[in-house]
Amino acid sequence: MDIKTLYQISYGLYIITSTRGGKFNGQIANTLFQVTSEPPTVAVSINKQNLTHEFIRDSRVFAASILSQDPPLSFIGNFGFKSGRDIDKLAQVNYKVGKTGAPIVLDHTLGYLEVKVINEVDVGTHTIFIGELMEAETLRSGEPMTYAYYHEVKRGTAPKTAPTYIKEEKVKRLAKYRCTVCGYIYDPEKGDPMAE
Amino acid sequence: MDIKTLYQISYGLYIITSTRGGKFNGQIANTLFQVTSEPPTVAVSINKQNLTHEFIRDSRVFAASILSQDPPLSFIGNFGFKSGRDIDKLAQVNYKVGKTGAPIVLDHTLGYLEVKVINEVDVGTHTIFIGELMEAETLRSGEPMTYAYYHEVKRGTAPKTAPTYIKEEKVKRLAKYRCTVCGYIYDPEKGDPMAE
Repeated sequence: MDIKTLYQISYGLYIITSTRGGKFNGQIANTLFQVTSEPPTVAVSINKQNLTHEFIRDSRVFAASILSQDPPLSFIGNFGFKSGRDIDKLAQVNYKVGKTGAPIVLDHTLGYLEVKVINEVDVGTHTIFIGELMEAETLRSGEPMTYAYYHEVKRGTAPKTAPTYIKEEKVKRLAKYRCTVCGYIYDPEKGDPMAE
Repeated sequence: MDIKTLYQISYGLYIITSTRGGKFNGQIANTLFQVTSEPPTVAVSINKQNLTHEFIRDSRVFAASILSQDPPLSFIGNFGFKSGRDIDKLAQVNYKVGKTGAPIVLDHTLGYLEVKVINEVDVGTHTIFIGELMEAETLRSGEPMTYAYYHEVKRGTAPKTAPTYIKEEKVKRLAKYRCTVCGYIYDPEKGDPMAE
């Protein structure tokens, strides 16, 4: 079985946000998709280890900011490689509170969706949250960031809690890291999502 | 609510195939995604009206061929705009029978996945089939077809059973059709996915 075939599945890149007890958090996700059109319903797969998972599970709402191609890797790093248990991620960016109460990240965002969770499916390490679209707004025109663009052009990496992270493919050699999704060799000397 | 914000979600393009009672069928889908990495698990949203839905529901297996950017629109049209109740779609293409018993379309395919369904979620007009990866093989290198590329470059349209089809956006004027996903104005005089 050639597990790398999974790399050929196409995705976008989104910031999934939620709220609990007056607190906000968000994370990067690539696994957002529309599952029906009437009524408009979307699904997202979130790692159970993530704080955003707890928030969505408790509040039953989430928002998705659809990223443009222009964010610096530090912006991705803030949401994708840090935990809301350690820092206030929303303090680093411009956001507004949506009608669901979830925060909506506005920086580098083409548009956003607000979702009320109507079902959740346990898939082992992750939960698929399925929800009805409550609000949708386009903020600006532009090309959406795709997962392929992120890896090929932005040279980004994936955290180990990503659904598309593949442990077996992880190699650490001469202090370089092979990206588990696109095969890109990440060299700390050349740049770091957190350091930009 | 600006429903067109949903168009900014990124997808690939796949042929989802299945089997029942010695018969084969397949359809185009854009909503395939990986939901966990250990064990590798994928999900796909399939319209309940489609014959492929019946086959997956009964056989509990499906295969996904990951399309390259090169198929002619007639190839897409065979799987996306016709019903397996009327024609034998697999008779039009090269395929092999996989280890799950599902047929695997080999033409214009970068690689394929074979999946055993372990869960299904009723989401109204569609069912999300969730399954464990049983086989994966990369057949050739190349750029995967994205849904955006299909609409922008290939100028393809979406059938009304697609999860991303939006009825309200459908306009028929002067015998032209506005694509419900990308906004592309489809002019029958300029070309037809079925006629190429």
